Amino acid sequence: MLSTMQTTPLTVSSILRHVVQNHGDRGVLTATGDGVRRVSYRELGERCGKLANALRRLGVADDDRVATFQWNNQEHLEAYAAIPSMGAVLHTLNIRLSPEQIRFIATHAEDRAVIVDSSLIPLMAKVLPSLDTVRFVLVTGEGDITSLAGCGKEVLRYEDVLAGESSEFPWLDGDENAAAAMCYTSGTTGDPKGVVYSHRSMYLHSMAACSGNAFGIAEPDRVLPVVPMFHANAWGLPYAALMAGADLLLPDRFLQAEPLADIIQAQRPTLAGAVPTIWNDLLHHVDRNPDIDLSSLRLVACGGSAVPRALMESFEQRFGVTIVQAWGMTETSPLGAIATPPAAAEGEDRMRYRATQGRPVCGVELRLVDDDDRVLPRDGKAVGELEVRGPWVTGSYYRVEAEDRFHDGWLRTGDVGNISPDGFLTLTDRAKDVIKSGGEWISSVELENLLMGHPDVVEAAVIAVSDPKWQERPLAAVVLRDGTETTADQLRSWLADKVPKWWLPERWAFVDQVPRTSVGKFDKKALRRIHSDGRLAVNEVYE
Amino acid sequence: MLSTMQTTPLTVSSILRHVVQNHGDRGVLTATGDGVRRVSYRELGERCGKLANALRRLGVADDDRVATFQWNNQEHLEAYAAIPSMGAVLHTLNIRLSPEQIRFIATHAEDRAVIVDSSLIPLMAKVLPSLDTVRFVLVTGEGDITSLAGCGKEVLRYEDVLAGESSEFPWLDGDENAAAAMCYTSGTTGDPKGVVYSHRSMYLHSMAACSGNAFGIAEPDRVLPVVPMFHANAWGLPYAALMAGADLLLPDRFLQAEPLADIIQAQRPTLAGAVPTIWNDLLHHVDRNPDIDLSSLRLVACGGSAVPRALMESFEQRFGVTIVQAWGMTETSPLGAIATPPAAAEGEDRMRYRATQGRPVCGVELRLVDDDDRVLPRDGKAVGELEVRGPWVTGSYYRVEAEDRFHDGWLRTGDVGNISPDGFLTLTDRAKDVIKSGGEWISSVELENLLMGHPDVVEAAVIAVSDPKWQERPLAAVVLRDGTETTADQLRSWLADKVPKWWLPERWAFVDQVPRTSVGKFDKKALRRIHSDGRLAVNEVYE
Repeated sequence: MLSTMQTTPLTVSSILRHVVQNHGDRGVLTATGDGVRRVSYRELGERCGKLANALRRLGVADDDRVATFQWNNQEHLEAYAAIPSMGAVLHTLNIRLSPEQIRFIATHAEDRAVIVDSSLIPLMAKVLPSLDTVRFVLVTGEGDITSLAGCGKEVLRYEDVLAGESSEFPWLDGDENAAAAMCYTSGTTGDPKGVVYSHRSMYLHSMAACSGNAFGIAEPDRVLPVVPMFHANAWGLPYAALMAGADLLLPDRFLQAEPLADIIQAQRPTLAGAVPTIWNDLLHHVDRNPDIDLSSLRLVACGGSAVPRALMESFEQRFGVTIVQAWGMTETSPLGAIATPPAAAEGEDRMRYRATQGRPVCGVELRLVDDDDRVLPRDGKAVGELEVRGPWVTGSYYRVEAEDRFHDGWLRTGDVGNISPDGFLTLTDRAKDVIKSGGEWISSVELENLLMGHPDVVEAAVIAVSDPKWQERPLAAVVLRDGTETTADQLRSWLADKVPKWWLPERWAFVDQVPRTSVGKFDKKALRRIHSDGRLAVNEVYE
Repeated sequence: MLSTMQTTPLTVSSILRHVVQNHGDRGVLTATGDGVRRVSYRELGERCGKLANALRRLGVADDDRVATFQWNNQEHLEAYAAIPSMGAVLHTLNIRLSPEQIRFIATHAEDRAVIVDSSLIPLMAKVLPSLDTVRFVLVTGEGDITSLAGCGKEVLRYEDVLAGESSEFPWLDGDENAAAAMCYTSGTTGDPKGVVYSHRSMYLHSMAACSGNAFGIAEPDRVLPVVPMFHANAWGLPYAALMAGADLLLPDRFLQAEPLADIIQAQRPTLAGAVPTIWNDLLHHVDRNPDIDLSSLRLVACGGSAVPRALMESFEQRFGVTIVQAWGMTETSPLGAIATPPAAAEGEDRMRYRATQGRPVCGVELRLVDDDDRVLPRDGKAVGELEVRGPWVTGSYYRVEAEDRFHDGWLRTGDVGNISPDGFLTLTDRAKDVIKSGGEWISSVELENLLMGHPDVVEAAVIAVSDPKWQERPLAAVVLRDGTETTADQLRSWLADKVPKWWLPERWAFVDQVPRTSVGKFDKKALRRIHSDGRLAVNEVYE
């Protein structure tokens, strides 16, 4: 029996239409270094119409990929809204990747055009001649474009192109399962793999982000996505803010602690999202400038890597700002779980819940499987690989065989952990980062979090190194706060009453910084390589 | 180009699975008259499994309609969750309808079974023998069932039937466009018409209800749906609360102001929904019992008919409780628009926005058309019939020709009003209630709201009566507060500086109550009939 309901498609274009019709006075503010520039969503809608007409006139057809190579700013948001809404596919390129990776990704995706911020031309110029599928380049901003001469592509100024166009465009009103956007994973092994989001998945993900159990985004909010828009859609915050009619505050290239603190004070965002290192840097900046006021933030979403408990406590105690840990992947759009404690939890119990990866947002289902693909109980004890399912979770990768990444319609995440009876996910490791010592697992992530809870430790990364007796043992690479001289012995004592004795690392390296991936996570692959190359000075401490 | 996303269906069964897996400790409380009874959602899930197994064993197949004839209570929620999740169709029967209407509706829907609360057996006994398609009856509660003997149906006790069943059931994991539930409109003209909700529409509606711009329902909430579960899914609050893992507080048959005040004080709901008359009654109860504490309510959703401004102001000033007006219909699941003022509005401006029907929730699109079906501008001035579109709006009625109710894929609502440039809908009338005086429209709803803002007026309904000179003129039927003796002249003076002079009614009837429909709205059709029968004592006042 079929329902009598309309089957109106869930599309990015309908989000754009909604915000223009109902929240046209709200808008997007972009940091300029000494202030902000602003357009209302009504004006944004008009500029999106112009962009879509321009792209169509330049030959962008339905399904063509249009790449972006941009900071978080108004023009990037225009690409976010206009490209899917016209029926083409937004492809966000990661500006932190190597030229070779960019070439691989843009060619694999067959990008037809690239929108480039003029401040990024030096990076793009290196790779552009090798992007065989790209026909033209739109340059935003005022910067010099002479270095693009001779790249073999048509190079146009974004504003010049928009100037001549009509602001009216017949936005897509079609199949919600059509491609809307794509993003390549920054996988640390193998070639990057493409995830193709649908209009439906984007729409549902935005609804989930606006729900009370996630970020509860509403029209009075001012949303500050510090997490890059080339990184898993900036966690979906831009589309969710448009859906809610909330103001967007975009930091452009001003991502250091000082300009971020300035924009937070001046523009008073209510909600922000960034990886833990950004919040850590901000915290240290406020240490040196205690008058800075961060109190406008009602919620700070944090993810990408485990959020140190000490960071959450500092923000709560010093600013009254709640940092909430969220878990997700490029493959999950990315919102999967969020670590809001149950309403009934109190005191220390709340912090215990907040230190997990969280409880799934309705729509996302989590389960654990063992090495034989048997589903494990949700008892908070059984440890297995996390699998995930839902309408904004990828079911394949773009034009690549990867059947080993899927299992009965579920995505294998490569993460290892447990799930409590009340649904909270605790990840103990990446499957590939797990330390197997004498046949038992040691959680590198738990060791890192405990170490980063030590007052003198700024960063800590733990990797497995081979050991003649135990097969593998943990090695801790630690960054100490300036001026402190904590020893490995002292850090072992710090850990001693918090973990089993056989978890205590014998190998310690005090380093200036932990290597990071292009999206700011600890790069343990690089750390392992530095260690295997013999370039890490390791102290060995045995009791 | 297709996306790589999973196409996991959006189903009621996935909401049930989510709440049991992740919020099993939260639950549903049902008023008992002297307290509450409670089951956790974990237990509810088990009881749903038993109910589904019982219904299957009793012959309920996929797509079969199972009717409910119940108050808002735990057992009704079990029907809400279990019946769609097993693949059958929940059909909520309105217990306020006449036996003839119930017979028409249950027969038109071909209900196979009815779940009846034992306190409603006297009503059901009158109609049951004539329900030809019904094969069996499940009776909840402890009440006497002997009056059902000889009804020609198999009559079973709900708890007896559940007792023998397994709590495990293979819940639906299929087509999201399949029917999940149905509800007949309480149309005041013609036969009732059936709306068939899909799993998809229920799921999306629940997500919308949980969004920050709607009710922002989250796990810490305790949701009190006073609006009946047989009336447009109790505005979707039960499914939304399950999706969020929020507690549900169900009033059963204890709907009078006193028991409602008691349950609000004792159980401290954070969110409630009911028609304006309920809140009005509660306000008068608190007038007499000023110690009553309603402060747990962060938001009170109000709809079904226009919400008097005075009611909103009283709740805000006296209890700090925000009443928000929401607009919708059975045909729109029902959430269509919600009257939260824009973030930028201040002071008196906020109240002006709150007095509208509100701004559409993302997903719902509104437009106005004139008598020639031309789309009108959204300028706050042009008045036309409201049309609505979206994934939880009906596109037809169940097995009835009603092409005149649809227009290019939009539902014609029969409501008349305007839309402001910032998206706020103001309904001035039902198309059939419009008063056309000398070729110009007078808004009966606006006159009613202004009259109900007078301190001595409890209720006011305004209808059109024929007039030899002006074709139609307004007649105001007014209920005065006990002990007051306000005159028609005084009420005309009250209105005089608020509306154009030619709007002032000349005809006034002071009545003990305004007739109401089965769902508690002013029944203007009945009022017009009483007037045309000469049973209304009318004072005529000309200046």
